[in-house]
Amino acid sequence: MSTALETGVMSGQVSLAVSTVVFALRPHPASGAMTLWLPLVRRIREPYDGRWALPGGPLEAHQDLAASARQTLQATTGLESAYLEQLYSFGAVDRSPADRVVSIVYWTLVRADEDDAATNGPNVEWFVADEVPELAFDHNDIVRYALGRLRAKITYSPIALAFLPAEFTLAELRGVHEAVCGRCLDPANFRRQVIAGGTVMPTGTHLTGTSHRPPALYRAARPEEKKR
Amino acid sequence: MSTALETGVMSGQVSLAVSTVVFALRPHPASGAMTLWLPLVRRIREPYDGRWALPGGPLEAHQDLAASARQTLQATTGLESAYLEQLYSFGAVDRSPADRVVSIVYWTLVRADEDDAATNGPNVEWFVADEVPELAFDHNDIVRYALGRLRAKITYSPIALAFLPAEFTLAELRGVHEAVCGRCLDPANFRRQVIAGGTVMPTGTHLTGTSHRPPALYRAARPEEKKR
Repeated sequence: MSTALETGVMSGQVSLAVSTVVFALRPHPASGAMTLWLPLVRRIREPYDGRWALPGGPLEAHQDLAASARQTLQATTGLESAYLEQLYSFGAVDRSPADRVVSIVYWTLVRADEDDAATNGPNVEWFVADEVPELAFDHNDIVRYALGRLRAKITYSPIALAFLPAEFTLAELRGVHEAVCGRCLDPANFRRQVIAGGTVMPTGTHLTGTSHRPPALYRAARPEEKKR
Repeated sequence: MSTALETGVMSGQVSLAVSTVVFALRPHPASGAMTLWLPLVRRIREPYDGRWALPGGPLEAHQDLAASARQTLQATTGLESAYLEQLYSFGAVDRSPADRVVSIVYWTLVRADEDDAATNGPNVEWFVADEVPELAFDHNDIVRYALGRLRAKITYSPIALAFLPAEFTLAELRGVHEAVCGRCLDPANFRRQVIAGGTVMPTGTHLTGTSHRPPALYRAARPEEKKR
C-alpha cells in the first residue's frame, strides 16, 4: 500500500521553500511606543511582481532547513541571530497561483544590540508587524500566525528573553512583554509573576550610572535553577 | 537577489513527504499500566526494506498537508481522529540515504472510544512508544521528539483532554497524565492543580452505576470560561 509508506519518490509538482519571519522591537513611527517590526522583500518577478513578501527562497538540495533560514536572515538583514526556531509549515493547495509550493517557515527574534547592527539587503524594507500591506501568497496569514504564536508563547515560556541582552532589568523585561502584547502591565504584578515563575534570576549586580536607586540586573535561569 | 525571494521554482532534488505519529493509550504488555502506543508500518521497498517506519507517504500535488496526514491515519488504523496537529518538519540533508526528502510530521491523539474501533492496515503493527525498534530514516528521532513535545505540552496545555471523551472524571484525567509521563501523581495535588488551572469544568453530573459515592464528571472549559 504505497500511500502508507514514505517512499521518497518525488511527487512531481510540489516544490519546497523556506521563509523567515524576523521580529525586532523598534519604536512605532506614530506613538513612539516599542512595537514589533519585521523586514519584507519586494518581489521582482511573477507571481505577485512588486508585492511585498516574507524573505525566503527555494530549499536547495544540499541545504539544511535551519541553514536556509539563517542564510535568508543574513541576506535580508546582515544579522546572525541567536534565536532561530521552526514556526510552522504552510501548504494549502492554492497558496501560490503558479504552482504548488509548501513553505517551511522559521522565525527569529532579534535582540536590540543585534538590531543596532542590522543592514538592509536589496529590496528590503521594515514594517510594523501589525500594519503590513497586502502581501504575496498567504504571507499575511503567516505573519498573523507568527504574531499569535509569539503573543501566546510569551505567557508561558521565557521567549521574551530572546529580545534582551544576557543581563537586563525587570523594567526592560516588562517593556518586551508590553511591546509584544501591545498593552501596559502593572509593574508590581509583573515583578511578582516573573519572580514566582522562576525563569529569571538576579545577577546580584545593579545597573550603573543611572540614579541613586539603580535597578537590579537579572539573567535567564539555568535549567537546574528552574522550578519543578 | 534571488535567494531572498520565494521564487516558487522547483529546486529539483528535494521531495516532500507527510508522516504521522499516532498516539493511543493502551496497557503495557508487561506491567499492565496504561502507556503510549503508536502504529508503525513495515517498509516493503528500499531504502530500509523490511524496517519499521512511521506511516506516511509523498505529498500529492493536489493534497493539503493535513488531508495527507488524515489519509495516512485512515489507511493505517481505519480511524478519523478529532485531534490532528502539525508537529514539526524534519529536513536534515542526510536523513534519507537515497535522495533528499523533507518530512512534514503531523501527530494525532486517539481517544479510548476511537481506539476501540481501530483496525490495522496492511503491514501495520502497534508498538509501545518508548520501546520502538530501530526504525527507517530518522524516525527514531521523530518519535523521541513527539514524545518530548507531548510530555512538555501536557504540563501547560489541556492536550490531555484529546485522549478523553467529552465527559470524564478527574481520576481518568489523572490517568492520562500518569500514562503520558510514566509516573504516578498524588490525587489530591492533581485535583487542586487542575481545578486551579481552570481548563476543566464540572458538568454537575456524576458517573452512574459505580459506587455509593460516584465521582463527579468534568468537561473541557469553553474559551469564555477560562481564567486570565
